[in-house]
Amino acid sequence: MTSAAPPRGFDEAEFGARTERAQAQMAARGVDALLLTTEPEVRYFTGFLTQFWESPTRPWYLVVPASGKPVAVIPAIGAEGMRGTWLDDIRTWAAPDPEDDGVSLLCQTLNEALSEAAGSERRLGIVMGLESHLRMPYGDFAQVLRRVDAQVVDALPLLQALRYVKSEAEIEKIRFVCELASDAFRALPEKVAPGMTEREVCKQMHLDLLQRGADQVPYLLGSSGHGSYNNIIMGPTDRMLGAGDVMIIDTGARFDGYFCDFDRNWAFGYASDAAVRAYEVVYAATEAGFAAAKPGATTTDVYEAMWSVMEAGGALGNDVGRLGHGLGMQLTEYPSNRPGDDTVLKAGVVLTLEPGMEFAPGQYMVHEENIVIRSHGAEWLSKRADPKLPVIA
Amino acid sequence: MTSAAPPRGFDEAEFGARTERAQAQMAARGVDALLLTTEPEVRYFTGFLTQFWESPTRPWYLVVPASGKPVAVIPAIGAEGMRGTWLDDIRTWAAPDPEDDGVSLLCQTLNEALSEAAGSERRLGIVMGLESHLRMPYGDFAQVLRRVDAQVVDALPLLQALRYVKSEAEIEKIRFVCELASDAFRALPEKVAPGMTEREVCKQMHLDLLQRGADQVPYLLGSSGHGSYNNIIMGPTDRMLGAGDVMIIDTGARFDGYFCDFDRNWAFGYASDAAVRAYEVVYAATEAGFAAAKPGATTTDVYEAMWSVMEAGGALGNDVGRLGHGLGMQLTEYPSNRPGDDTVLKAGVVLTLEPGMEFAPGQYMVHEENIVIRSHGAEWLSKRADPKLPVIA
Repeated sequence: MTSAAPPRGFDEAEFGARTERAQAQMAARGVDALLLTTEPEVRYFTGFLTQFWESPTRPWYLVVPASGKPVAVIPAIGAEGMRGTWLDDIRTWAAPDPEDDGVSLLCQTLNEALSEAAGSERRLGIVMGLESHLRMPYGDFAQVLRRVDAQVVDALPLLQALRYVKSEAEIEKIRFVCELASDAFRALPEKVAPGMTEREVCKQMHLDLLQRGADQVPYLLGSSGHGSYNNIIMGPTDRMLGAGDVMIIDTGARFDGYFCDFDRNWAFGYASDAAVRAYEVVYAATEAGFAAAKPGATTTDVYEAMWSVMEAGGALGNDVGRLGHGLGMQLTEYPSNRPGDDTVLKAGVVLTLEPGMEFAPGQYMVHEENIVIRSHGAEWLSKRADPKLPVIA
Repeated sequence: MTSAAPPRGFDEAEFGARTERAQAQMAARGVDALLLTTEPEVRYFTGFLTQFWESPTRPWYLVVPASGKPVAVIPAIGAEGMRGTWLDDIRTWAAPDPEDDGVSLLCQTLNEALSEAAGSERRLGIVMGLESHLRMPYGDFAQVLRRVDAQVVDALPLLQALRYVKSEAEIEKIRFVCELASDAFRALPEKVAPGMTEREVCKQMHLDLLQRGADQVPYLLGSSGHGSYNNIIMGPTDRMLGAGDVMIIDTGARFDGYFCDFDRNWAFGYASDAAVRAYEVVYAATEAGFAAAKPGATTTDVYEAMWSVMEAGGALGNDVGRLGHGLGMQLTEYPSNRPGDDTVLKAGVVLTLEPGMEFAPGQYMVHEENIVIRSHGAEWLSKRADPKLPVIA
């Protein structure tokens, strides 16, 4: 039984606290204002939740000043929605406007925010590093560089550190979507059988996720092969499932703007000894990762715990580049469970544990669960997978 | 009855033809290579279709040289999938790599492609303008500017012109998803009733779209209000539908990577005279836009045809900034039906006609259909809406 859905949205106090934490970090790092351009960045500080970002036409900007509430610089079509948030200062233009698609209004707003800076050298924070991009035309960003009187500095570490630790309200949303996806995965074997295609199996999963309370399912991959699958990012296809096949489904469903991200594996008809054994290895790796994930340990410790189990279990390699990652408003977030990452875990951090390996040439087995770090150690958010590779008759 | 689904994917010849058309335009405009970073850009030239772009972690690059096939510079996790496309040259790195997340490999590939340029001044095409962004870290792009021996120029007009005219195979995919969404819209009144919430009504629509053959539904907005709705980009919410309400649902469902984008309106219990009249006006505006949409006419002609009907019909204003747009691999594409756009229509162009107006303070009525331009004029892709505002009892 999936629990009742948690309340939607957040108390206004949560946005105030997020903004104050950002501003304390800005002060500490000498950043006088932040320019934000992507959906999760804008939503994190405002609660502005709309599917309208699917349209690439219009840019949306949020300016976080050194003190006070953020300022929205957005297309007029979004004014009514943004007035529903805690913001007071909402500036709009009639987008799309090929002559000036909000960039003059943005530069003016940035210069205003920066004019309050105490020092002589003004510093504007933008995201520059790994896993980031600026969702605005490059030509307009070049104008910002020319027309705004400030040096641009990388604010990505500041924003990553902020979003890294989740509030209880955030964790409850992720827990709910993890729970309903766990239940949908458990119910799936009764709805599918050999002879169905990958696409048909994934469609059943998709429908069930929505019926159980997911808002959207932006990510639902299915991959299969005789013995096992050879990749985990393509599919589903029209490949028909037959005896001896192994199929993986990996899903990122969303509730109120928060994701789950985990997978399940099944054999069809029968499972090869090699697949059964590989499943046991990645399952054991997840247990090891879970045990290692506690406050004070690092993402690298979690990686090492999982990889050592897979190495001992006969792993030929892994081309994913990491064994799990942060999770929340995005399907994948900072940090990564990888060698050299060394991010220190804290209570409130939500992670995926994603041990995967090539167990025979061209054959992969990947397992994934979602956890939250508590003061005493890790806690499951997804309901634990079967310890043995399930076989669908 | 929805037609059978068209075949998935494209003949390899289609990618060859797209690349050759791009290269002819590059030669004409003196562009020696293109750097592409977004999902639709990479897919347009390769057919590489994966939901994995939902993860913001890894950048994906495609380099289109002056002649020959494009070169993929991608994370190793994507190699197996990219080998399934027509490309020969696939270069990978173990992403994510905080030290060098593919940028050295990218710079090397770009310099190689540019070294074949005949002239002394090398020119690298990137997208810079309206409706575009670079999906890569700004810090890495700054490295490209330093390490690649070329002037960057705006290749957006070139890419927009290429994608503006659809092939028959593309049109068939859009037609199919338009048809199934039309059928789902027509079936919806039997599944809903006053007392349901916006969210419950949208969930019924979402499930039906998937059951009729949509792969994903990235965009499904619902908005309602007594008399009518006050915005078209937020929602659905838990607002309960009652007598005298008008609700709009706007959906962008996808089949094989191609979108529909149109809406439908319903009154619940009864419709106010003002809402009935506003619906008639936007319906008539769509008819006028349809009549105006033919080869040789412009997007501005289509806009004027629709706006003049709404102005005569009592429109107070419109904050959308345009009355429809291009449609295809993205929910919204170049061009826009707006004053001054002046894009000349050609056979094979797919457009939305989206007349909308504020008909009373804070009350909107928006109608939308999808069309394709043929040599003789426009052809409906969506099945025409009811000419009168439907009332759900």
